Amino acid sequence: MQILDKTVRADTAAARKGEMHQLDEAIELAAASPSSDIVRARTHPAFANMVGPFGGITAAAMVNAILTDERLLGRPAALTLNFAAPISDGDYDISRRPVRTNNSNQHWTLAIEQDGQVRVTGTALTVRDRETWSALEAVMPQVPPPGQLEPAGPVSGLAWLRNYEMRFVTGVFPAGPQDAADDSTTTMWLRHADPRVWDFPALAAAADSFSPRIFNRLGHVVPAGTVTMTTYFLADAATLAAQGADVLGTVRAAQFSGGHADQRAQLWGADGSLLATSTQLCYFKVPAPEQS
Amino acid sequence: MQILDKTVRADTAAARKGEMHQLDEAIELAAASPSSDIVRARTHPAFANMVGPFGGITAAAMVNAILTDERLLGRPAALTLNFAAPISDGDYDISRRPVRTNNSNQHWTLAIEQDGQVRVTGTALTVRDRETWSALEAVMPQVPPPGQLEPAGPVSGLAWLRNYEMRFVTGVFPAGPQDAADDSTTTMWLRHADPRVWDFPALAAAADSFSPRIFNRLGHVVPAGTVTMTTYFLADAATLAAQGADVLGTVRAAQFSGGHADQRAQLWGADGSLLATSTQLCYFKVPAPEQS
Repeated sequence: MQILDKTVRADTAAARKGEMHQLDEAIELAAASPSSDIVRARTHPAFANMVGPFGGITAAAMVNAILTDERLLGRPAALTLNFAAPISDGDYDISRRPVRTNNSNQHWTLAIEQDGQVRVTGTALTVRDRETWSALEAVMPQVPPPGQLEPAGPVSGLAWLRNYEMRFVTGVFPAGPQDAADDSTTTMWLRHADPRVWDFPALAAAADSFSPRIFNRLGHVVPAGTVTMTTYFLADAATLAAQGADVLGTVRAAQFSGGHADQRAQLWGADGSLLATSTQLCYFKVPAPEQS
Repeated sequence: MQILDKTVRADTAAARKGEMHQLDEAIELAAASPSSDIVRARTHPAFANMVGPFGGITAAAMVNAILTDERLLGRPAALTLNFAAPISDGDYDISRRPVRTNNSNQHWTLAIEQDGQVRVTGTALTVRDRETWSALEAVMPQVPPPGQLEPAGPVSGLAWLRNYEMRFVTGVFPAGPQDAADDSTTTMWLRHADPRVWDFPALAAAADSFSPRIFNRLGHVVPAGTVTMTTYFLADAATLAAQGADVLGTVRAAQFSGGHADQRAQLWGADGSLLATSTQLCYFKVPAPEQS
């Protein structure tokens, strides 16, 4: 990527071996200084989606923009991104602004501009963890370990899917009417096809790895996509780094109506740690059944 | 409110009778023009919280800023607000910028500044509803109708609580150790103490009417508050306007750890309509138990 005069890299296993993981290539940034408000990124063909890049890789790049800013206080705790327009193939600019820094947290405003147009808006919260009372109230789904499940074959020609191995427990990527279900839940083990540690960018991407739930209701792909998503990172960096290859994702929609559906996800470590919760609103285009 | 040279009002029952509901007073805005990027608001003593105003009334004011902007396309669908610093009593400025307008949706960046400091950041999505395939997948809690429940007495001296009648089905506002629970769920009927129609500002406020879940776990109040919240509005204006006095709210935390806890809420109409889903991250200050 000769356009980059200065690169910042996540500390991954691949990077430590002197190689660069494809995910890290895709979120590589060029900054005039470690505290520049604007950093340059570039789409990566390995993460292409239907139109523009996989939203998860855009989220990962945004998180990387924060992590590589020397003004950062704490670690990512919340990220909201709004996909206002598709990002075209090529360079784009991430705007990262720490607009308020408190003693134990920091508030960021984020945006992506390309060709003078806003493509993504967003905000993020970073926090300093404190030792406090703690309790886990959510319940991890009871599922077979990933070793007992076969990875799904290629479910579509989309490039970004090849970065992951998905082992579906329930709610497969639908291949036809036989896969239509009244319950939109998907639960799956997710693994980087090329091994890589779990960190905040990887987790931000994983939170968007579920397809729009309308696919599972209808049993086939329809025009649909994420419009806005919010992810809460509930684990610290050490907890993430201690994870094995697979994280367990589970997702379900609450309602489909008026061209939009919300869905709610959890990402779990195999050790029972709740790593993240995430919610998003997807648009979809499916006409109402004709009234008889 | 003599500071206001021009006011914009929600179309509520009270307003139509020529009176102004306290909620509408609290979200009244002054704008130089119907498309000003900056509008002036003012805190209202009836919505005071522990420190600064009730976050829900701030959310309602933000929604009103969008609804009263002549540039608006569609109706509110998603709102994320980050509470970066407390708002002091008095005037404050809302920044509302429609940064991208598409055929069927619009993306807004939001902020509150006061005394030259950023106090709140945020984004919003507005959408044009389309007739589509629809399905409700979430399940409304089975609860007694509000008429069979007594409203809770004053649970604290906080001013904003007096704007609502809360009828708790489970998870009362805790008054002591006997109310501590291993399950942080609260389910309650919520009604405006002074009758008012349900609309987007009212719903935005209601989504923040649940106390931090740590109170219910411990059985008492501790230093805690919302840092970031995201609400998806799943009903259109007509569905909201058709609601009766009470909406049913249910909320539960997923995890408490490192000084933060996330919580997830749903707001239902008595007619079984899912009106909104909402999630927030609260900070809390409770030391870890001493190790023996």
